[in-house]
Amino acid sequence: MDFAYDARTERLRAELTDFLEQHVYPAEAVYAEQVAGAEDPWARPPVLAELKAAARRQGLWNLFLPDARYGAGLTNLQYAPLAELTGRSPHLAPEALNCAAPDTGNMELLAEFGTEAQRERWLRPLLSAEIRSAFCMTEPDVASSDATNIATRITRDGDHYVVNGRKWWSSGAMDPACRILVVMGRTDPSADRHRQQSMILVPRDTPGVTVRRGLHVFGYHDGPHGGHAEIDFDDVRVPVENLIGAEGAGFAIAQARLGPGRIHHCMRLIGMAERALELLCRRALDRVAFGRPIAEQGVVREWIAEARVRIEQSRLLVLKTAWLMDTVGNKGAHTEIQAIKIGTPAMAEWVIDKAIQAHGGAGVSQDTPLAALWAQARTLRLADGPDEVHRAALARRELRRHA
Amino acid sequence: MDFAYDARTERLRAELTDFLEQHVYPAEAVYAEQVAGAEDPWARPPVLAELKAAARRQGLWNLFLPDARYGAGLTNLQYAPLAELTGRSPHLAPEALNCAAPDTGNMELLAEFGTEAQRERWLRPLLSAEIRSAFCMTEPDVASSDATNIATRITRDGDHYVVNGRKWWSSGAMDPACRILVVMGRTDPSADRHRQQSMILVPRDTPGVTVRRGLHVFGYHDGPHGGHAEIDFDDVRVPVENLIGAEGAGFAIAQARLGPGRIHHCMRLIGMAERALELLCRRALDRVAFGRPIAEQGVVREWIAEARVRIEQSRLLVLKTAWLMDTVGNKGAHTEIQAIKIGTPAMAEWVIDKAIQAHGGAGVSQDTPLAALWAQARTLRLADGPDEVHRAALARRELRRHA
Amino acid sequence: MDFAYDARTERLRAELTDFLEQHVYPAEAVYAEQVAGAEDPWARPPVLAELKAAARRQGLWNLFLPDARYGAGLTNLQYAPLAELTGRSPHLAPEALNCAAPDTGNMELLAEFGTEAQRERWLRPLLSAEIRSAFCMTEPDVASSDATNIATRITRDGDHYVVNGRKWWSSGAMDPACRILVVMGRTDPSADRHRQQSMILVPRDTPGVTVRRGLHVFGYHDGPHGGHAEIDFDDVRVPVENLIGAEGAGFAIAQARLGPGRIHHCMRLIGMAERALELLCRRALDRVAFGRPIAEQGVVREWIAEARVRIEQSRLLVLKTAWLMDTVGNKGAHTEIQAIKIGTPAMAEWVIDKAIQAHGGAGVSQDTPLAALWAQARTLRLADGPDEVHRAALARRELRRHA
Amino acid sequence: MDFAYDARTERLRAELTDFLEQHVYPAEAVYAEQVAGAEDPWARPPVLAELKAAARRQGLWNLFLPDARYGAGLTNLQYAPLAELTGRSPHLAPEALNCAAPDTGNMELLAEFGTEAQRERWLRPLLSAEIRSAFCMTEPDVASSDATNIATRITRDGDHYVVNGRKWWSSGAMDPACRILVVMGRTDPSADRHRQQSMILVPRDTPGVTVRRGLHVFGYHDGPHGGHAEIDFDDVRVPVENLIGAEGAGFAIAQARLGPGRIHHCMRLIGMAERALELLCRRALDRVAFGRPIAEQGVVREWIAEARVRIEQSRLLVLKTAWLMDTVGNKGAHTEIQAIKIGTPAMAEWVIDKAIQAHGGAGVSQDTPLAALWAQARTLRLADGPDEVHRAALARRELRRHA
Repeated sequence: MDFAYDARTERLRAELTDFLEQHVYPAEAVYAEQVAGAEDPWARPPVLAELKAAARRQGLWNLFLPDARYGAGLTNLQYAPLAELTGRSPHLAPEALNCAAPDTGNMELLAEFGTEAQRERWLRPLLSAEIRSAFCMTEPDVASSDATNIATRITRDGDHYVVNGRKWWSSGAMDPACRILVVMGRTDPSADRHRQQSMILVPRDTPGVTVRRGLHVFGYHDGPHGGHAEIDFDDVRVPVENLIGAEGAGFAIAQARLGPGRIHHCMRLIGMAERALELLCRRALDRVAFGRPIAEQGVVREWIAEARVRIEQSRLLVLKTAWLMDTVGNKGAHTEIQAIKIGTPAMAEWVIDKAIQAHGGAGVSQDTPLAALWAQARTLRLADGPDEVHRAALARRELRRHA
Repeated sequence: MDFAYDARTERLRAELTDFLEQHVYPAEAVYAEQVAGAEDPWARPPVLAELKAAARRQGLWNLFLPDARYGAGLTNLQYAPLAELTGRSPHLAPEALNCAAPDTGNMELLAEFGTEAQRERWLRPLLSAEIRSAFCMTEPDVASSDATNIATRITRDGDHYVVNGRKWWSSGAMDPACRILVVMGRTDPSADRHRQQSMILVPRDTPGVTVRRGLHVFGYHDGPHGGHAEIDFDDVRVPVENLIGAEGAGFAIAQARLGPGRIHHCMRLIGMAERALELLCRRALDRVAFGRPIAEQGVVREWIAEARVRIEQSRLLVLKTAWLMDTVGNKGAHTEIQAIKIGTPAMAEWVIDKAIQAHGGAGVSQDTPLAALWAQARTLRLADGPDEVHRAALARRELRRHA
Repeated sequence: MDFAYDARTERLRAELTDFLEQHVYPAEAVYAEQVAGAEDPWARPPVLAELKAAARRQGLWNLFLPDARYGAGLTNLQYAPLAELTGRSPHLAPEALNCAAPDTGNMELLAEFGTEAQRERWLRPLLSAEIRSAFCMTEPDVASSDATNIATRITRDGDHYVVNGRKWWSSGAMDPACRILVVMGRTDPSADRHRQQSMILVPRDTPGVTVRRGLHVFGYHDGPHGGHAEIDFDDVRVPVENLIGAEGAGFAIAQARLGPGRIHHCMRLIGMAERALELLCRRALDRVAFGRPIAEQGVVREWIAEARVRIEQSRLLVLKTAWLMDTVGNKGAHTEIQAIKIGTPAMAEWVIDKAIQAHGGAGVSQDTPLAALWAQARTLRLADGPDEVHRAALARRELRRHA
Repeated sequence: MDFAYDARTERLRAELTDFLEQHVYPAEAVYAEQVAGAEDPWARPPVLAELKAAARRQGLWNLFLPDARYGAGLTNLQYAPLAELTGRSPHLAPEALNCAAPDTGNMELLAEFGTEAQRERWLRPLLSAEIRSAFCMTEPDVASSDATNIATRITRDGDHYVVNGRKWWSSGAMDPACRILVVMGRTDPSADRHRQQSMILVPRDTPGVTVRRGLHVFGYHDGPHGGHAEIDFDDVRVPVENLIGAEGAGFAIAQARLGPGRIHHCMRLIGMAERALELLCRRALDRVAFGRPIAEQGVVREWIAEARVRIEQSRLLVLKTAWLMDTVGNKGAHTEIQAIKIGTPAMAEWVIDKAIQAHGGAGVSQDTPLAALWAQARTLRLADGPDEVHRAALARRELRRHA
C-alpha cells in the first residue's frame, strides 16, 4: 500500500504543473472571452486547439490510457496526481491533454473491447483528437442508476442492428466534431438481468439519429465541451460489425467503463477542491471587512482548516483506490470506488461552497471559476449513479460481513 | 402574536392560488421557450406582459406596498402568505404582480422618502410597470456588507451632484425598460460613519453611465429579468433635486429599504421550498427504481419529513417577524429580520437540494425549476449581507443581554 | 393562531421565574452535594421535598394538568411557556412543581380514563406527591416503537388478570416512593393490531413484580429521580378492577398519553436550550483565550447566533402545536406533534453541544448542568419513538397529499 | 508513503486480535459486574490484573513505546493498527497491554527526558505496571489550550522546588496505585512565552498535595481507571532532582508528549468507530421493526455506508500521520497531527451516535459499550486542545502558503 509518487510521476507532475502555469491558467480568461463572444454556443473556443497542440508537443497527451500501445501506459496510481492537477482547471486542462470525459471512457472501451477495425476507424482519430465521441446510456424515462431499466432496443435485422430509443445526458454530442456515439441498449429482454444489454457504435450522422437539444447544468449549457445532448434513435440501422464485444456483454462493458470513469472524476474533484481552497485563502488574505482581512475571522479559518482536513482524507482514499485497482483489479476495488464516489463529490462541493461564500457576489458569478466548479461537483453527486444507490450497495456489502 | 390569516388575506390567497394555477404555472413552459428562442438575451419574454395584464385586471397588483396611497396597503403579516405563493414560481409570479425586486424596494423608497416631483416622475411609471429600475449599492472592490466601505463618490457641484464610481449586482439594469438607477455613494467622507452616504436618482441614460456587462449567477444570466449589471459612473451629473432625502441620510434610507426587502426574500423562499417539496413528493411517487417507487425508500422519506419540519419552523419565524414589523416597526424587528435572513435561505437551499437529488439529471437541468430555484436560494446566503455578517451581529446582541 | 401569552400565563411566568431564581437555581448545588453524599443511590435528595413544599405554597403545583378538577386547568398554550421555564433546571423544577414525567402522564391517564375508585386510590396521592408511579410500556426484546410488538401478556383468570413479561425504561420505578405501575400488555393477540393491548394498574409490591436493576443514560443512573428500571412480571395477579378503560383500549390510551407527554418534553427542551445558550454566552464573555474573550471569536459568535435562530424557530412550532392541540385536539395535531418530536431534541442537542464545547472540560463534567442536559436531549431523539419512525410517518402523510 | 503493515505488525495484529477474542471481549461483562458491585468507586476491578498478566505472558506489553530499551520498539506506523485494535475495547484493552494514557505519555517522557535516577525510580515500576501516574497540566481557572496561560508556580528554594497551584483533569490520579504526578508549572514568568514553564515530578504522597475530587465525563466518573482528579498543590516541596529536563523546557517537553498522545487517541478512535459500526450492523440485522430487519431500511443503510467511508478516510490520514512522524519526526508531522485531532473524534462521534440510535434505549444504557464510547469520543473534541484551537492553527499554516 505504497502511495508515494514514483520518479516518472514526479517528473510528469512537474511538467504538468509548469504547463498549467505557462499555458492553462493564462488561457482561462481567453477562453471565457471566446465563449462570451461566440455566435455558435456549441463551437469549440479556438484557445482549446492551441492548448492541445502545446500539450501534445510536450508529451502531455493521453495520460489517462493505461494501455501503452495507445496511451501513456500509466497505472491508476501514477495517473491520479496528474488527473488531480487537471482538475484545477477542469474546463481546459483535461481536454488540452486529451484526457476529458467522455472520450477517455470511450477510448478505453475501444482499446479493451473493440475489434481491430473499430479501433482503426474510431480509436485512432480519438487518440489524436481529430474527432470526439459521446456515450449514450442514461435515458430520460427510467431510473438509469438501475441499468436493467434501460429501455432502448437494439434489434438484429440480418446484417444490421436497428436501434430505437431516447437517450439524454450524452455529453459532448452537441459538438460539431462529435462523430461517434457509443450506445447501450437491450438486445435480449428475455435473458438474465445483466445479459440483456449490448453496446454498439453508431456514427452520429446515421439516418434516424436526431440530436434534439442540449441540457443545462445549473444554467450552464457546457456548449464549448459539446454540451449534454438528448438524442432520439428512430430505426437507426448500423452494420453488425458495429457491436462492441458480444451480444449481452453491454452491462459488463459498462461496468468496466464506469470504474475508471468514476475514479477519474474523483481525482479531478480533489484538484477542484484544491483550487477552491487556494482561491479561498487568497480572497481571505486580500479582502478587508470591518477593518481587517477576513482571514483573521474565526469562521473563515474554520472553513480553511476543515477544507484541508477533508481534502487530505479524500485524496488518500482516492490514492488507495487507485492502488487497489492497480493491484487487485477494478472489480476488487469495487467497494472503494463506491466509497470515493460517495465521499469525494460531497467533499468538493463543501469546499467550493465555502470559497464561494468568502467571495460574495463574485463567487457565484463568472468572475471566478467557483460557481462552475460547484455545479460540476454537485452534479457528480447524482451522475454515474446517485449517492443513495452507491450507499445502499456499500451498506449491503458491509452488512454481509456480519450476517 | 396572532399569525392567523385574516379575511382579506384569505381572499387574496384564494385569488392568487387560482391565478397561479390558471395563468402562471401554464406560462412557465411558454416562458422557457421564449427565453430559449430569444435573440436578445436581455429582452423580456412577451408572456410576462400578458401575465401582468391579467394580474392587474384581477387586482393582484402592487400587493407589496404598505402605503395605501400607492399600493395595496397590506401589512407585512397580510402580505407574507401572498409573497410566499409568488415564490412558488419566482421567475414569473412576482413580476406578474409588479411585486419583484428591486423595483419593490425602489418604489417603497420613493413612496417613503421621495419628493412629490420624484414620485410623479419615477414612482408613478414604476407602479404601473411602464418602466423598471435598479438599485446600485454593492461595489466590486470593497466588502459592501460593511456599507461604510462604499467608495463611490457623490460630489456637489453647484446645482448638480457628480457621481463617480463602479457598482455591480445592479439587478434589472440590463433591461431595456430600466430607466432609473437609485445610487448610493459617499457625499461627506469626513462625517460620522453612518452619515457619510447619500442616495441619489440617476436616469440610466445620463451621460457617463456605462452599463458594462451582466453578471451570471451560476450559469444563469437572468436576462429576462434585466440581469445583474456592472455599471461605471464617470462624472455623471444629475440635478440636486435628484437627491433622495437629505445629504448623509443614505445609510438610514438603505437600512429602511433592506428590512422589507429581506423579509420579502424570505417569504418567497418559503414558497420556493414548498414548490420543491411538492416536486420531490411527486417525483418520489412516480419514479420507480429497483422495483419500487422511491417514495418507499427510507432516505427519501427522511428528506420529505425533515423538509416539512424545516419549512414549518421557518414560516413561523417569518410570520412572527412580519407581525413584529407591523407592531413595533422595522427597527424593533431588526433581530428577527436577521434571524430569518440567516435561517430561511439555508432551509430553502437544503430542501431544493434534496428535490434535485431525487430528480437525478432532470433536477440540475432546465426540465424542472429546481436548479434555478437552488441558485437563487444559494445566492441569498450572501446577497444583502452574507450569513456571517448577520450571525456576528445577532450574536453581539445576544451577548449584550449577558454582559 | 394567536400565540401571545395571556394574562394568567404572564402572571404564572413571572411567579415561576421568581421561584426559579429564589429557590431552584440556588438548590442546584445543594442537590448535587446531597446526591454525591448519598449512601442510597435511589434516595430522593431532601432538597427536593423542600422545593416541593415551597412550590405548593405558592400555588405552582400540578400546572400540567388541563383537567381543572384535579390540576391547574391550563391549556397547552398556557402551559407551554411554564414548562419551558422548568426545563431550565430539568432535574429540579419539574419535580418541584409536581410536573415531572412519568407521573404527569400517569395522572392525566387516571384523570381521563380511570374509574372513581382508581382515582381515589392512586390519582389523589400522586396529585399531592405522596407517592410516585411508573409507566411500563417499552420492552427489551422488541422494537417498542412499533407498539404492536409488545409481548407482555395480560391474561384474564376469573376476577383477576395475570401479568407476565419483562419491561424496561420504567422511569421512576427505582424510587422507594414509587407505589404503582401502569403496565401495557397484550390481552387478545387475535384482535385487530391496535385492539390487542390493554393497560392495567399493578401496585409495585404485588408478588411477582421484580425490579431487577436500573438502566443508565450515558453514565447517569438518574437515581434521585427513581432511575430507569428493568422489571420482571412473573405471574403477577391483580383484580380485574385494576384495568384502565376497556380491554383492548390499551393502544388508544397509550396514544392519548403520549401526545401531551411528547409536547411537554419539547417544551422543556426549549428551556434546556435557553439555559445552555445563556451559559454559553456567559462563558464566552468570561473566558479569555489567546488574549481575548472567546466571545470575540467568530466561531463562538456563529454558535450563538445559530442557536438563537434555532431556538426561536423551535419554540414557535411548539407553540403552534400547543395551540392546535387546544383547538383541534391531540389527534388533529398529530403531524405537528411528530414534527416537534423530530425537530426539538435535535435542536437542543446541537445548542447544548456548542455550550459544552465552549466550556471545555467543565462542559462534560458535573460542574455545569450541560452534560446532563445533553444526555437528556440526546435520549429524547430515541425515547417515545426514534426520530426515524416519526419521520417515516410524517413523510407518509406528506406524500399522501400528492398521491 | 507506504502504509502496508509489515510482517511484524501483521503477526502482532493476529496475536492481538486473538487476545481480544479470547480474553478481552469476554472480560467486558465481568468488568461491568465488578464495577457495579464495587464498594470503592476508585478500586481497580480485579479482572484488569488478570488481563494484564495474560497480555504480558504473551508479549503484548508496552507496545506503544518506540524506545526499544524499554518497550516494544515499534514505529508509529507499526503501532497504529495495534492501538486501533485496543480501541475496540478502550476500557480494557489499552490498560491490559500497559498501553493506556496517561501512563504511556509519562513513560515516553521519562524515557526521553528523564535522568537515569528518575527512570530507575519511576519508569521501571510504570513499565511493569506496579504503579500508575498522572499528568497535571490543565487548570480550572484558565484556558489551558493556551499553555502560556498556566498559572501554577514552581519556585526554586535552595535544593527544592515549591509547587503552588490547582490542576484538574489529572486522569488516573484517583487510583490508589497512582504514585507519581508529572506537573507542569511556571518557573520564570519573565522569560519568553514558551520558556516560562517547567515540568517536575511530584510523588503523590508529598505533603501539600490534596486530591480534592474526581471529575465526571457525562455521567461517568471513570473510577476504575483512576478517574479525573482535581488536585491542589499547596507549598509542595520536592528536591531539585525531580525536575524533568532543564528549567524552561516544560513547554517543549509538553509538546513532545502531546504529539504521540494525540495520535494514540486517534488510532484508538478508529477502533472505537469500527466496534460501533460492527454493533450497528449486527443490530440492524437482528432487530425487526414494522415487519422487517432495520438493516433493510434505507436510512440505516445510509448510516452504515457513510460510516464505512468516514472510517476509511480517517484511518488513512492517521496512517499517513504515523508514517510522517516516523520519517520526518513529530515536528514535521505537526499539521497532520492537528488534522487528525480535528477529524477523527468527530468521525467517531458520528459513527457511534448512529449505532446508539439503531440500538434505541439499549444504546444509551450500560448494556452496550456505545454510550461510554461516545462520551470518550465527544470529550476528545475538546481534550488536548479543543477543535477550534487546532483549526485556527491549521488555517494559519494554510494561509501562510498564500501570503
